[in-house]
Amino acid sequence: MPEFSATDCVHMAHALRLAERGLYSAHPNPMVGCVIVRDGEVVGEGWHKVAGEAHAEINALNVAGDKASGAIVYVTLEPCSHHGKTPPCCEALIRAGVSEVVVGLRDPNPDVNGAGIEALAAAGIATRVGLMRHEIEKLIRGFLSRLTRHLPLVRLKMASSLDGCIAMSNGESQWITGVEARADVQRLRARSGAIMTGIGTVLADDPSLTVRDASLQAAGKQPLRAVLDSDLRMPLSAEMLALPGKTVIYCAEDSRKSALLDAGAEVIKIGRGNGRLDTTAVLRDLAGRGVNEVLVEAGPALAGSLIADDRVDELVIYQSPHIMGSETMGMFRTPAWTRLADRKALDIIEMRRVGSDTRITARLAG
Amino acid sequence: MPEFSATDCVHMAHALRLAERGLYSAHPNPMVGCVIVRDGEVVGEGWHKVAGEAHAEINALNVAGDKASGAIVYVTLEPCSHHGKTPPCCEALIRAGVSEVVVGLRDPNPDVNGAGIEALAAAGIATRVGLMRHEIEKLIRGFLSRLTRHLPLVRLKMASSLDGCIAMSNGESQWITGVEARADVQRLRARSGAIMTGIGTVLADDPSLTVRDASLQAAGKQPLRAVLDSDLRMPLSAEMLALPGKTVIYCAEDSRKSALLDAGAEVIKIGRGNGRLDTTAVLRDLAGRGVNEVLVEAGPALAGSLIADDRVDELVIYQSPHIMGSETMGMFRTPAWTRLADRKALDIIEMRRVGSDTRITARLAG
Repeated sequence: MPEFSATDCVHMAHALRLAERGLYSAHPNPMVGCVIVRDGEVVGEGWHKVAGEAHAEINALNVAGDKASGAIVYVTLEPCSHHGKTPPCCEALIRAGVSEVVVGLRDPNPDVNGAGIEALAAAGIATRVGLMRHEIEKLIRGFLSRLTRHLPLVRLKMASSLDGCIAMSNGESQWITGVEARADVQRLRARSGAIMTGIGTVLADDPSLTVRDASLQAAGKQPLRAVLDSDLRMPLSAEMLALPGKTVIYCAEDSRKSALLDAGAEVIKIGRGNGRLDTTAVLRDLAGRGVNEVLVEAGPALAGSLIADDRVDELVIYQSPHIMGSETMGMFRTPAWTRLADRKALDIIEMRRVGSDTRITARLAG
Repeated sequence: MPEFSATDCVHMAHALRLAERGLYSAHPNPMVGCVIVRDGEVVGEGWHKVAGEAHAEINALNVAGDKASGAIVYVTLEPCSHHGKTPPCCEALIRAGVSEVVVGLRDPNPDVNGAGIEALAAAGIATRVGLMRHEIEKLIRGFLSRLTRHLPLVRLKMASSLDGCIAMSNGESQWITGVEARADVQRLRARSGAIMTGIGTVLADDPSLTVRDASLQAAGKQPLRAVLDSDLRMPLSAEMLALPGKTVIYCAEDSRKSALLDAGAEVIKIGRGNGRLDTTAVLRDLAGRGVNEVLVEAGPALAGSLIADDRVDELVIYQSPHIMGSETMGMFRTPAWTRLADRKALDIIEMRRVGSDTRITARLAG
């Protein structure tokens, strides 16, 4: 592990903050930030805004101009060495005459994976790798999940009362939580490559699953809508089929396929496991489509089976300060859990007030 | 409202901290603290430890000795003017020659109720009343509830998972929460004059409902155990009947009364309302026995009916970081709540980590 100074940390933290600005727009690419420093002065900064457009390093070099010569470059992710949609950043850094590149995280993308660092070193540029690595991994964990596990990060969002109810027995659930919590869900949607739900939720609530908040700079993209629908019961009149963005329906039985194709949906036939759709196959398909993070907004059946199958990486519960009582629906359907020992332990990552509700972020305890 | 200086506030805050030391032992009396200050120096302090023993003022005067002469006395509650189990504090303050008495809260006890302040003024001692009144009211709100509403403060404690489950469907519930949360419940018990439960909980769990933590200086007292048992199904072998402290069984049908009396219980016949025991009558009886705070540790039926009837002043939920799923029991049985509008809103007073659990303290929103 190379040595890093306090000044190095300040500049990399700055680059990390810049990277975060791509939260809603950079995916399927990773969020990346870059800061260029000469003689202790920041002469350039940039971040990756939209896939297909300039990378963070290029944006920072454009700001620095001639001042990049002899400068130190701090970049959260290894610069690319390959021609993708844009030319390789390594070439630009070499051409600009920078003296050193400090890299947060080596890019696990098989097209890069150390080749960028090697190209810089081969051109006589000093490199140091690994500064704030854990913070950067946390920020782009969806991207890392897709590249290394070939699965997106799965974030399950629920809205419940303090006594764990998500709806009345008759299905009434609008609204369990307040406007601030619902605005927060818009931010979860905007950072996600796909929103996943079950056909039960579609039939009960006819949700749109879109990002409606124009202030979320998602570069006009709508997350893909993924519906788990074993028997292809999706109504042709479903709201989401008429909205901007793509709806993909995963089923095991596709006799109604052509009508749904006509309605604008994509229909994918997937196998069953344990009598249910094989969610791993669905998630692999989504990863193959470039989805880094999938947000699950579903009812107790899908939520329960994802939890029981350990398919949830992050659980986000918006807990409203109400008691809803007994004539209600619970959060997770888990018919196989009959003993207390069957319960799942969580690591609580954060509890935060959002309006009058409490947002609880948790991971399944290892 | 008289004027108070910053110095006055410092001394009254000190008296309030002293008062709190009586949390586990002073009841049914109120917690009271007293600080005596001469020439800016604290010369005496005291608090009320145990009902029947010296009041806070007397303990503080005993420390101050001759230095009480000409001093200012800060006392959280109006000094008594009547002969109770101990002689009136006003007489002692007058005899000690104090120059001024600053009182936090006027005592609503009909035996005092301003008479203490009048007695001091009649003796030529300056008085100012109302400093930190709200903080003091909060501390002794159980005592105030008993004197003014003729009902104890009702605190309902529940232990649940994050998804609102209190037991598996088969009744298994040991333990939902961790040792730290269970130790915290011991503190709730020790500050309470009574622990209330339902016969269902007794039959299912055979709880002891005692304070077992010797470090809680409850002056050797055990809270009264109050069991709601309409049809007097209390087993003669119930654990609690053999333990130190008193068990009072409230019933509507008392044919088994003599056997339970022989087993050491007290049996009180109470009317029914809505087919259930009249909980208001039970609470009035407890207030008549000097109970300032009652802790309810009950199952979903009693918890639900107390919530639905607005009989709960404070709700304390120990929420464990687990998902228990669907084959479980919920927190509150509320058969009449069929629409979302029937739900009860809560004001969250505090959320705090207790071990790995979260303690949520709430009041029913007005």
